[in-house]
Amino acid sequence: MSGKFIVLTGGVGGAKLVLGLSQLVPPKQLTAIVNTGDDFEHLGLAISPDIDTLLYTLSGKANAEQGWGRAAESWAFMTALRELGGEDWFQLGDGDLALHVLRTMRLRAGDSLSKICADFARAWEIGAAILPMSDERVATIVTTDEGDLPFQHYFVARRCEPKVRAVRFEGAATAKAALGAVDAILHPEVEAILIAPSNPYLSVDPILAVPEIRSALERATAPVVAVSPIVGGKAVKGPTAKLMAELGIEISPASVAAHYEGLIDAMLVDIRDGQVALGIKTRSADTLMVTLEDRVRVAAEALALARDLRG
Amino acid sequence: MSGKFIVLTGGVGGAKLVLGLSQLVPPKQLTAIVNTGDDFEHLGLAISPDIDTLLYTLSGKANAEQGWGRAAESWAFMTALRELGGEDWFQLGDGDLALHVLRTMRLRAGDSLSKICADFARAWEIGAAILPMSDERVATIVTTDEGDLPFQHYFVARRCEPKVRAVRFEGAATAKAALGAVDAILHPEVEAILIAPSNPYLSVDPILAVPEIRSALERATAPVVAVSPIVGGKAVKGPTAKLMAELGIEISPASVAAHYEGLIDAMLVDIRDGQVALGIKTRSADTLMVTLEDRVRVAAEALALARDLRG
Repeated sequence: MSGKFIVLTGGVGGAKLVLGLSQLVPPKQLTAIVNTGDDFEHLGLAISPDIDTLLYTLSGKANAEQGWGRAAESWAFMTALRELGGEDWFQLGDGDLALHVLRTMRLRAGDSLSKICADFARAWEIGAAILPMSDERVATIVTTDEGDLPFQHYFVARRCEPKVRAVRFEGAATAKAALGAVDAILHPEVEAILIAPSNPYLSVDPILAVPEIRSALERATAPVVAVSPIVGGKAVKGPTAKLMAELGIEISPASVAAHYEGLIDAMLVDIRDGQVALGIKTRSADTLMVTLEDRVRVAAEALALARDLRG
Repeated sequence: MSGKFIVLTGGVGGAKLVLGLSQLVPPKQLTAIVNTGDDFEHLGLAISPDIDTLLYTLSGKANAEQGWGRAAESWAFMTALRELGGEDWFQLGDGDLALHVLRTMRLRAGDSLSKICADFARAWEIGAAILPMSDERVATIVTTDEGDLPFQHYFVARRCEPKVRAVRFEGAATAKAALGAVDAILHPEVEAILIAPSNPYLSVDPILAVPEIRSALERATAPVVAVSPIVGGKAVKGPTAKLMAELGIEISPASVAAHYEGLIDAMLVDIRDGQVALGIKTRSADTLMVTLEDRVRVAAEALALARDLRG
C-alpha cells in the first residue's frame, strides 16, 4: 500500500487497532491522533496515559494482560512513595517514570507535547507517527452524582463508580490541533481515516472536540470508518456500557453511529450485533481483539471497508 | 543525658558520625544542620544529596557499601531513561525517586525544604531533627582548570578530576538560616556542637557561609568540637586530600583546625596523626568509622572532648 492511514484513538482498545494496522501498513504511512483529555498532572509530573499506551504498545513494551503500562514493570517507587505518605491511587511504575519525568522536564522547558512524543517514538524506533490531538491543555471532566471529577479521578481513583450525568472537555473549544494533525487528515494520499473502538464519549469525543480536527474530518476526502466499540450489545472493556446506560443511550452500534453522524462514512460492526441499518455503509466482522492475529484481522476488515467506500 | 546536641554535617562521612551520636543521645535531643550546597535540579527534580544521605542513614535504609542511596535499590528508571536518551550521569534509584518527586512537588507548591525534610523524617520515624542549613538556594560552585562547575558536575559527572582553584557558595551571603537552626545552636541546654568529619571546603564551608549560622556558632556558649577529616595524613574518602593539595593546603589536622579558627574550641584528631599542637584543646582517638561500633566510639570521643571543655 502506498497511501496514508489515520487513526483517531484513545488508549488500550484503540492501541490494539493501531498495532493491528501497523502489521498491515508500512508504519511510516500510519498516523495515530491520540486523545489527551485524560492527561493530568500528578505528583508534579505530566502524565499522558493514552499517548503512553500507544508508545508502549507500538514499541512492544506494553503489559498485554494489564492493558496499561510496561511489561515486567517494578514498583519500588510506589512502595517508597506510600511510606512517605504520597498519593498512591495512581500507579506509576519504576520504568514508566522515565517517560513522565522527561516529559515534565521538557514541557517546563517549553517543548511541545507533540515534539516530545515524536522524540520518544523515535528513541523506541516506532515508525508510526503518534500525535497528541493538541499541544494545548484539554481536560476531560466527568459530571457525576458526586460532582465534577477530572477524568483520572473518575476512572482510576473512583473506578468509574459514580453515576455519570455529562462529560465535557475543558479547553477543547479554543485548543488548536497539534501541528501536523490537520494536514495528516487532509493529505490527498490518505486512503482511510479510522476511528478506533475506544470509548466514544470519553476517549474519542475529546479529539472531536478540537474544532480544527472535527472540521478536517468533515472536509476529508478519504473515507472515515468507525470501528464499533460494542460487541454483542456490550462494551468490551472499561466504562463504555455503564456510561451509555447512565447517559440514557441504548447500548448498540446504532447509538454509536448516530453519535458520529456527519463525521463517519461507514462502520465496522461486530458480527454478534447482527445486521444493522445505520443509514451508512456497514460491514460485519468479529471485532473482538484478544490476540495479535485478532488485531490484524480487525484492522484489515476496517481497511477493506474503507476500500469499498473508495470504490 | 538531658542536654541538646548539634552536628554540622555533609553527606556520607558526616552521616556516620550522626548515626553514632544517635546511639548515644536520645534522638529527640539531636539536631543535624545539613549542607545543601550540593543540592541541584536534575531532570526537573529537586535533589538534596546530603539531606537524603542523612534520611537514609538515620532510618536504616542506607546502602552502607555504596555510601549513598538506598539499600536494595533497583534501577528500572535509569534503564528506561537511557533508552529515551535522558541524561544518565547522575544515578537515581527507583525507590529514591519518591523523595525527589515528592520534594519537587512540594517545593513548587511553596513548602519549605525544612518542612518537607521534617515530614520525611517523621514518615520514617527518625527522632533526630534534620535541618537543611537554609531554605534558600545556595549552590556550591567549584572553579577548576576546566572552568566553573556546579558541585554535582564536578563531583559526579567529572569524578573530581578537574584541578580545583577555588570554591564558592552562590547565594550563601544572603541566605537566611533555616527556621530553627540558629535557635538550636544557641539553645542554653546545648552540651556540644560538633562539626562532622565531612569535607571542610566542600561540605562544611557552605554551612558556615550562611551568615546567621556562622554568627550563631561564634556566639554559642556550648563547646564547638570539630572531628578531623584527616586520618594518618590522608582523607578517608572523597576528594578532600586531592582538593587540599590543589588549593596548596597541607593535608593535616592543623590545616583543618586553622581553617575553622575562631569557630571551634577543640578538635578530635586521629591517633595516627600523633600529638599535634593546634592552639586549641585536642583529643586523640581512632576516628576511622567502618563499623557501627566505630561510629559510636568516635561520637563518644567527640562528646567526651566537649565535656572536658565544659569542665
